[in-house]
Amino acid sequence: MEPIKKNKAIPKATAKRIPLYFRYLKTLDQSGIKRIKSNEFSQMIQIPSATIRRDFSHFGELGRSGYGYDVPYLIEVFSEILNTDIEKRIGLIGVGNLGRALMKNNFRRNSNLNIVASFDANSMIIGEKVNDIEVYDIEKLKEIVRKEGITTVIMTVPSDKAQRVMDQVIDSGVTAVLNFAPKRLKVPHHIQVQYIDLTTELQTLIYYDENYNGTDLSVL
Amino acid sequence: MEPIKKNKAIPKATAKRIPLYFRYLKTLDQSGIKRIKSNEFSQMIQIPSATIRRDFSHFGELGRSGYGYDVPYLIEVFSEILNTDIEKRIGLIGVGNLGRALMKNNFRRNSNLNIVASFDANSMIIGEKVNDIEVYDIEKLKEIVRKEGITTVIMTVPSDKAQRVMDQVIDSGVTAVLNFAPKRLKVPHHIQVQYIDLTTELQTLIYYDENYNGTDLSVL
Repeated sequence: MEPIKKNKAIPKATAKRIPLYFRYLKTLDQSGIKRIKSNEFSQMIQIPSATIRRDFSHFGELGRSGYGYDVPYLIEVFSEILNTDIEKRIGLIGVGNLGRALMKNNFRRNSNLNIVASFDANSMIIGEKVNDIEVYDIEKLKEIVRKEGITTVIMTVPSDKAQRVMDQVIDSGVTAVLNFAPKRLKVPHHIQVQYIDLTTELQTLIYYDENYNGTDLSVL
Repeated sequence: MEPIKKNKAIPKATAKRIPLYFRYLKTLDQSGIKRIKSNEFSQMIQIPSATIRRDFSHFGELGRSGYGYDVPYLIEVFSEILNTDIEKRIGLIGVGNLGRALMKNNFRRNSNLNIVASFDANSMIIGEKVNDIEVYDIEKLKEIVRKEGITTVIMTVPSDKAQRVMDQVIDSGVTAVLNFAPKRLKVPHHIQVQYIDLTTELQTLIYYDENYNGTDLSVL
């Protein structure tokens, strides 16, 4: 296989869909399906087939008319793009109900994603282990990030603590943050923050259900 | 105030941003800020000011040059649109780690969003209460949905159970589903499903961090 050049003219909207494509292709592959047509794939993942064809075209000549796409080849391409064979060492900050739930699950369906340490300010739980993951004092963040080789942080802290914790994360050298506090935070340009806001998702869902019944809600 | 006609020419992309606008305007209002200019609001919520001005224009003549937008008025408009004074009665299906975390939190910052009942197939936990919310047998879903006036369901069930549970939800008459299982499900046209896929969010974040450092990840 030709190596795929990273960053090479992959539009952002396409890049964003790659993890979704990858997941479904793996499912197909595990089910023994080695070829799929764009219209079938479209029905499966609920993305227009024109979008799929356009996206896939960025990765070379991958589909042939009447034959469809080669599933194992696409998995290889996307796997290289997503670097899924390389372990991602994750720190979780905020060992409350949601934090504990994520630690107990620990992305068990994705062997390369590993929460390896957690952090909290509450001295009552520091030193505890949840699913074999130690809870460290948040003041030790920078030290443990280096020691454990953590490159990504999940923040499950209350909104009013989020900016202070984010400042500590920035100081630790971590540049990728998945944040469950909905409040937009101030971060320098090189820090990537993905916000997951369950309340807004729910309000949007209800709002659509009541007003736009029957329309497509897909955000990806 | 002129009543806002629902559905009246509000583009979907605009509709989607309303819950976010609403949240920030409430924060401003609570801080005593009653007027805001679109460029200031833009910085706060990280949405381009041209987008904000275009969105707000759908709700009438709300901003004046040099004066900005009237915060309490906008809250009134969006509140009516989002129906936030009306209680939304929510059922949660799948009382595992994530389900329990959501029940313990129960959207406490949003008094109109209430998880009023939960459901599971595990006889060991049926009858239990989590944060005063009873765990019912999933086979009683239809009955409890009617009795409790549930209009929205949150699904925190394993992927391999998701389609079967969704079929039961459809049968119960609920049309709005927030689903934490990433697998796309088969649903009739009138059912609204919002997928929250934490693994894909995380993979996308890491992928962006490694490849597109410094670009905007905002999805809303």
